[in-house]
Amino acid sequence: MRTKAPVLKDLRDIRDVMEEEQSVDERNHGETKMELTYGREWDYELERLVDIIKKRDVKTVGLQFPEGLKRRGTKIVKELKGRVPQEVLIAISGQPCYGACDLDMHLLKRSDLFVHFGHSAMKTSDKIIYIPLYSNVEVKPIMEHALEELESAEIEPNIGLVTTTQHYNKFGEMKEFLEEKGYTVCTKRGDERLTYEGQVLGCNYASADVDANQVMYVGGGKFHPLGLAMVHKDKRVVIADPINNIVSIADPNKFIKQRYAAIHKSMSAVTWGIIYCTKIGQGRWELAQEIIEDNENAFLITLDEITPDRLLNFKLDAFVNTGCPRITTDDGPRFKKPMLTPQEYWISKGRDTLESLSFDTFHGTW
Amino acid sequence: MRTKAPVLKDLRDIRDVMEEEQSVDERNHGETKMELTYGREWDYELERLVDIIKKRDVKTVGLQFPEGLKRRGTKIVKELKGRVPQEVLIAISGQPCYGACDLDMHLLKRSDLFVHFGHSAMKTSDKIIYIPLYSNVEVKPIMEHALEELESAEIEPNIGLVTTTQHYNKFGEMKEFLEEKGYTVCTKRGDERLTYEGQVLGCNYASADVDANQVMYVGGGKFHPLGLAMVHKDKRVVIADPINNIVSIADPNKFIKQRYAAIHKSMSAVTWGIIYCTKIGQGRWELAQEIIEDNENAFLITLDEITPDRLLNFKLDAFVNTGCPRITTDDGPRFKKPMLTPQEYWISKGRDTLESLSFDTFHGTW
Repeated sequence: MRTKAPVLKDLRDIRDVMEEEQSVDERNHGETKMELTYGREWDYELERLVDIIKKRDVKTVGLQFPEGLKRRGTKIVKELKGRVPQEVLIAISGQPCYGACDLDMHLLKRSDLFVHFGHSAMKTSDKIIYIPLYSNVEVKPIMEHALEELESAEIEPNIGLVTTTQHYNKFGEMKEFLEEKGYTVCTKRGDERLTYEGQVLGCNYASADVDANQVMYVGGGKFHPLGLAMVHKDKRVVIADPINNIVSIADPNKFIKQRYAAIHKSMSAVTWGIIYCTKIGQGRWELAQEIIEDNENAFLITLDEITPDRLLNFKLDAFVNTGCPRITTDDGPRFKKPMLTPQEYWISKGRDTLESLSFDTFHGTW
Repeated sequence: MRTKAPVLKDLRDIRDVMEEEQSVDERNHGETKMELTYGREWDYELERLVDIIKKRDVKTVGLQFPEGLKRRGTKIVKELKGRVPQEVLIAISGQPCYGACDLDMHLLKRSDLFVHFGHSAMKTSDKIIYIPLYSNVEVKPIMEHALEELESAEIEPNIGLVTTTQHYNKFGEMKEFLEEKGYTVCTKRGDERLTYEGQVLGCNYASADVDANQVMYVGGGKFHPLGLAMVHKDKRVVIADPINNIVSIADPNKFIKQRYAAIHKSMSAVTWGIIYCTKIGQGRWELAQEIIEDNENAFLITLDEITPDRLLNFKLDAFVNTGCPRITTDDGPRFKKPMLTPQEYWISKGRDTLESLSFDTFHGTW
């Protein structure tokens, strides 16, 4: 049952609910796993949507889905159309979407009601309805197995507990399970970027900032626990993955080495592209401006989707990404030139020390 | 000197000024050509910009370049920075840009002054400065050669004359040249989408709607004259390409066959994605809505960049693109499912006849 953390290829591909859409074979080649015991039905809360549409006399509805759920979009439209007045126009966003930080502002503006599926609210608004899509997978069986990787409650009574939105419906159950095993479960709602207590995002692990040396992450994939382990380097992060039925320990060493390599490579850079991301929840203008003001060879570039192709057009030696940190850490190797986080830039320029290196996280909303 | 129209691979790659940035060898493999006689200096009108920045007390400047000129962006920033007050912040748009229809609205909103290079104004505004970037290439030598492909002035006295923004600085010279050869040159400014008399865009050939059976196109590449030949099927379009020093006749047959094939393939489609493009100058909401209202299996999808990857996420049988028609006609084969223009959709559904097939064009601004 115990496995090592598998080599990661492209984390963005297995992000969020998307991973639950992929075939298990695609992800777990060669790994020992339990038999799958869950179906894949989501509750899209259509009744609630229909009620709101009728009550508010909505004329235009915009729907947004994460990548892996886009193909379900047309079915949702059909089901909604059958239940709302004929004149209601329903549009689906075709823009890539990787989180609640990533709202399609064009469609939002065109819509009376905007429905964002698959993530929980980063900031509430009457016009935007978030439908998180909770998983129906059982969590206790894999947590039972994960106990083998934990220090016992006698030695380490405190344990942190975190999960993603998809499994938040089982959070009480998870907590109770650990308490029954004798642990004191330490949980918190990290900051205002998060909707729930114990919730983590790819860019925010403040909910694990608790008085415990070990943290259990219950959820699918390695994307979140690796971020968690990078932010909380002093904590042992045990992964109980009920989607793939795998228990493992988050090992961020490969990523940390990649960060060192990127910083090292960038040290010979003369010209820099400083990326300001225009996505609603990914803008850090001040961080970008600080670098621009410091370095006459740093050029401010504004972008929504940050892709290798788009940066290739600029003949620059290195980039700093002030947008989603996971693009930097996880997709970094796909870019032709080194890409750093803002803090890594300052390490590269010698203002900060390599020892101070920390994982780039996002706080607050917009 | 005479050559056939070469096989086109990906027109978007050789679009607009970009083509002038590519090495000649990349484009003209094997074709007979004259020796190049021009340099590649553009006038970025920096003095004018500096004056405006100072006069208006501008604090934030946004710059936008077409793909092929993005790499010049940082030099422009450096030159500007040396001439304006230190506190002026200059940002470059990293978004793909294919025309004056394609302004980076995010950066525009963040800027006091927005400078769009490489295209002429589609709609004027105090905040937006268009710097068209005129080519310094000589046009007369290649026009001289192109005469061989024209019917003589005795037989066909009338001739249409069109060009792109890049060569508009030589438009008077072109006209004079043809008049000296005995032709009556028929020119017009097509409609309000165009800035100049005789100007064509990838999506608008109204300037060639003149009383002449032959039209001379003076400009680089095949992108524009092929569109022209598709719109004005009854006219002979002679290409005098002073960038590649090639004379040829625009032959849209390959494209027309591709359109037939796409329509044919789409006839078995049950589910349709109807794309509404959110780019400022590419929105045709009514055309999209008309189809949505007609077909219960047509789903409205909003997008800025329309790419094969983004559409792949939707499991749909065919698409209709109400945005840039050149994505449909030129990039169509790159998409996994047939993509039609709005008119082609109505042909596919039997409302319109195949004989009525015409090239999709854009009129008006926003």
